[in-house]
Amino acid sequence: MSSPASQPDAARHLERAVGLAVANVADGGGPFGAVVVMPDGRTFDGVNRVTRDNDPTAHAEVVAIRRAAAETADFDLHGAVLYASCEPCPLCLAAALWARVGAVHFAADRRDAAAAGFDDAVFYEYFDGADRSLMPVAHVDLAGSGRPFEAWAAFAGRIEY
Amino acid sequence: MSSPASQPDAARHLERAVGLAVANVADGGGPFGAVVVMPDGRTFDGVNRVTRDNDPTAHAEVVAIRRAAAETADFDLHGAVLYASCEPCPLCLAAALWARVGAVHFAADRRDAAAAGFDDAVFYEYFDGADRSLMPVAHVDLAGSGRPFEAWAAFAGRIEY
Repeated sequence: MSSPASQPDAARHLERAVGLAVANVADGGGPFGAVVVMPDGRTFDGVNRVTRDNDPTAHAEVVAIRRAAAETADFDLHGAVLYASCEPCPLCLAAALWARVGAVHFAADRRDAAAAGFDDAVFYEYFDGADRSLMPVAHVDLAGSGRPFEAWAAFAGRIEY
Repeated sequence: MSSPASQPDAARHLERAVGLAVANVADGGGPFGAVVVMPDGRTFDGVNRVTRDNDPTAHAEVVAIRRAAAETADFDLHGAVLYASCEPCPLCLAAALWARVGAVHFAADRRDAAAAGFDDAVFYEYFDGADRSLMPVAHVDLAGSGRPFEAWAAFAGRIEY
């Protein structure tokens, strides 16, 4: 069961995320910070490291989620709450969904991000399905495409996630 | 400019992705594989490592994208094509968008994944906006939420991405 943070807690965690974001700019990273708060109160920070790590997925929220999972040695962050300096983009929302994060709070929003030159808004539109021309996704009929799932069903040692 | 792969090439890369997925099951990972093909023909593989690495974001496509970016020392994979053993979930699509991947080809589809017990279909619905109760996302008014973007605009050494 997740226990939603009280409003003063939410503001405190968001202020930390914003502070991380400001500090990250001087460190040469993008202007984004995030904090994952576990049900037991442990916190894990993340900052945007896309350009420093040459990792297009190293958004602050993803970094915080990856760190929380690694340090708790559990890919399932059930009941955790994610605090982000800015509205999470689809990458970060999907990462939080897969991590079973229970709720997300953010400070600045997608329009603020767009005004600062970030593409989140375009990517939201992509998921809205209005226009996929930005990156076409095509199904290819392939004999044997079911083999991985057959192997998975047959493998007694599988760890579900 | 991305140069779309010819159909025989697409089948060959998808067969490789499917083979990686099958092999990954025996290695204790999820039944997913992916290949990033760069415009110059270099290829970078990925397999699902969620449970082995305790990383909820370590989907095959994300792993392949991260590897391609790290090994080419460039967070921008403009013109690359992503081949996936199964239809990429929203996490993987968003990672590909941010990486500026030009096109995606996949073999098995989201219904195959759902039949095998994976939540991709539910997450697609989340992005369709029909039901956000799975993970509520809330804006919190916070004084100073614009500070990171102000710092970004003022920082002469920023690297845009």
